[in-house]
Amino acid sequence: MALADEGFRALDEKSLIDYIRATPAVSSLLGDDLEGLTVKEVGDGNLNFVYIVISSSGGSLVIKQAIPFIRCIGESWPMTKDRAYFEALTLREHGRLCPAHVPEVYHFDRPISLIAMRYLKPPHIILRKGLIAGIEYPLLAEHMSEFMARTLFFTSLLYRSTSEHKREVAEYCGNFELCRHTERVVFSDPYKISQYNHWTSPYLDQDAETIREDDILKLEVASLKSKFSERAQALIHGDLHTGSVMVTTDSTQVIDPEFSFYGPMGFDIGALVGNLILSFLSQDGHANNGKDRTAYKQWILKTIEDTWNLFRKKFISLWNEHRDGNGEAYLADVYKKPELWFIVQEKYMKDLFHDTIGFGAAKMIRRIVGVVHVEDFESITDAKRRAYCEHRALEFAKMILKERQRYDTIEQITSALQNIPS
Amino acid sequence: MALADEGFRALDEKSLIDYIRATPAVSSLLGDDLEGLTVKEVGDGNLNFVYIVISSSGGSLVIKQAIPFIRCIGESWPMTKDRAYFEALTLREHGRLCPAHVPEVYHFDRPISLIAMRYLKPPHIILRKGLIAGIEYPLLAEHMSEFMARTLFFTSLLYRSTSEHKREVAEYCGNFELCRHTERVVFSDPYKISQYNHWTSPYLDQDAETIREDDILKLEVASLKSKFSERAQALIHGDLHTGSVMVTTDSTQVIDPEFSFYGPMGFDIGALVGNLILSFLSQDGHANNGKDRTAYKQWILKTIEDTWNLFRKKFISLWNEHRDGNGEAYLADVYKKPELWFIVQEKYMKDLFHDTIGFGAAKMIRRIVGVVHVEDFESITDAKRRAYCEHRALEFAKMILKERQRYDTIEQITSALQNIPS
Repeated sequence: MALADEGFRALDEKSLIDYIRATPAVSSLLGDDLEGLTVKEVGDGNLNFVYIVISSSGGSLVIKQAIPFIRCIGESWPMTKDRAYFEALTLREHGRLCPAHVPEVYHFDRPISLIAMRYLKPPHIILRKGLIAGIEYPLLAEHMSEFMARTLFFTSLLYRSTSEHKREVAEYCGNFELCRHTERVVFSDPYKISQYNHWTSPYLDQDAETIREDDILKLEVASLKSKFSERAQALIHGDLHTGSVMVTTDSTQVIDPEFSFYGPMGFDIGALVGNLILSFLSQDGHANNGKDRTAYKQWILKTIEDTWNLFRKKFISLWNEHRDGNGEAYLADVYKKPELWFIVQEKYMKDLFHDTIGFGAAKMIRRIVGVVHVEDFESITDAKRRAYCEHRALEFAKMILKERQRYDTIEQITSALQNIPS
Repeated sequence: MALADEGFRALDEKSLIDYIRATPAVSSLLGDDLEGLTVKEVGDGNLNFVYIVISSSGGSLVIKQAIPFIRCIGESWPMTKDRAYFEALTLREHGRLCPAHVPEVYHFDRPISLIAMRYLKPPHIILRKGLIAGIEYPLLAEHMSEFMARTLFFTSLLYRSTSEHKREVAEYCGNFELCRHTERVVFSDPYKISQYNHWTSPYLDQDAETIREDDILKLEVASLKSKFSERAQALIHGDLHTGSVMVTTDSTQVIDPEFSFYGPMGFDIGALVGNLILSFLSQDGHANNGKDRTAYKQWILKTIEDTWNLFRKKFISLWNEHRDGNGEAYLADVYKKPELWFIVQEKYMKDLFHDTIGFGAAKMIRRIVGVVHVEDFESITDAKRRAYCEHRALEFAKMILKERQRYDTIEQITSALQNIPS
């Protein structure tokens, strides 16, 4: 750690200006006049510092710096700042595979874990905040399904050769600290007594204990954890919740892939779907003050359905398009018969759907009884009302996690979601 | 390739003596008198050159050199000689974990892909040859179960932390050429028309075609291939058939781990079990000339059963012993309830058993209709009789591969094995 930290210094708004002036690769992006720079720290995530930099000539960019601990917890929870290396690597790879939905990286400075990237200008906001505000994004499912289909397909063995695959897997093994963090906060801490766990107490005390005592649930969570730790299926974003997406009505941009590594595809799709379900179940907490959320809830359900169904369609379409390529998994010579090719794809997508539901549910649970919660619920100020929403989310998540093999379509999930007992 | 080959030269019996004389790390193992060295090439494997070196003072060692193609096929099938690096690495790791059953590595010379290791003196012979000769090895199951339990457990996430695991996985991703070879010869070629495939023709022409047309079989093989390519469960030997084991009545030594990488444990256990089943089914072809193999076949069945059952017992025992260690997969805090701990282990071992049967069966099939066959069958000179044995092996392998989820115990397998229709 000590050696890797040589040369590292955490910047602030003032020293960042000095850094920009001394770094032509960055300053050249801002135009000639470096006197009138405005810098504003806006990081509301859990891990890093994020600055918006705007020059008087109208140039702009975002600077993100990783620090060697978790920002929202403090130095008591160290985490390698080298996560910025993997974030930059993946932003570039995702940008190559899906440029319409990923901001460009302009500059990466590894010794100080600093990324300069495109500033996603207003009215871009974090998707989670838009969902809390009740804003519909008509292209969200279309865009996110496109992003997931392309980034997951092209980094899997359906497209890649074994040598390409193993080379990339090896590189991302370097991001083990972030993987370990996920293993801990998603798959372990919620199922045991842990220092940083919290929940809406006292209302959910019993819920939290019930989870810690649920043997079947813990057995299923072990299967998911094993898949997360051992299965290098594709380059996954690793943290694809609604806080990692910035949106306007016609733009969707995926950011913050510092948790990326070669893992199970369902972990990404599940993160998005699970967080959309959390949003759906939090709407009753935001429905007061004359805001009726009935229609909005229907839009969320439709978005969940479209996200999976469009993903499925686009993913299969990419697979068919590249069936004669270098992908090692299903050689065209072996699976050439059309009916077999169809069965192979159906099975692949069914397994992926079950993974998606399982991981999505695990991500829901951890957001209610684990260390880091979601604003969807946290912003419901009435604790009793919040606990009511959270309790229903926990019950639903436990049910679909344990019974995920029983579901064949996303409509069965959204249907069950509308029929949770009050 | 060109650069990696700088400084490489294939040795022969004469130039090997010059190499030994010029290499103190090797010559010092042979005593002072280097005039009376005898060198004999004995490689009967498919890939490499192997020399036994004996000095007049009684010193001895084995020198193994990898060449940049597959020996049994020729330069038309190139294969990185850097496999020797992974072989040496794994021999040392296996030796550390299970010294009783792995020969010591004395010296490794990476530029010329040369390993000097302990000479396993007579009466050590290759296990496969012993099985063909009808020799019983009363400690075989005990020793092989010990080797597999220790090497697989201690390199899995049941024992290892995430950081140790990912570091090792990354290292072994470098052995991708050998992984690719296995993917091809085990999971792809037998299921399509392929240049190097062959079988006992014309008797098995129909069998080979039936395999290429068996949609259910190919669907299941795809699942196994996916596990092989994506699941980094433990450091596996990667080629643990009966030709990779040297035995006497009281010694069992595992050699030739050049195919090693982080893969599914069932691939190793299955390789051994599958090859013991091949041995069992070849015995009828060796039973003539007054040799009755009835009792020997019972010993093989018993060895198959003991191998799995002892492995299972030892593996669980290691797991219990280290339940409070650094292993990331099943944290003691989460799975502390005794009945849950029991269920977790039962499920783990059941999944591993199904993997074992599936991979074992896939290895059987490829030895009959793929590129490289086994001496168990090849040494049956009467082609019609050989084909009869092979046909039964194919039918049995296809059946247990497709139906593997239906089997709970190894006794169900050995029982089915005794009841194959003639």
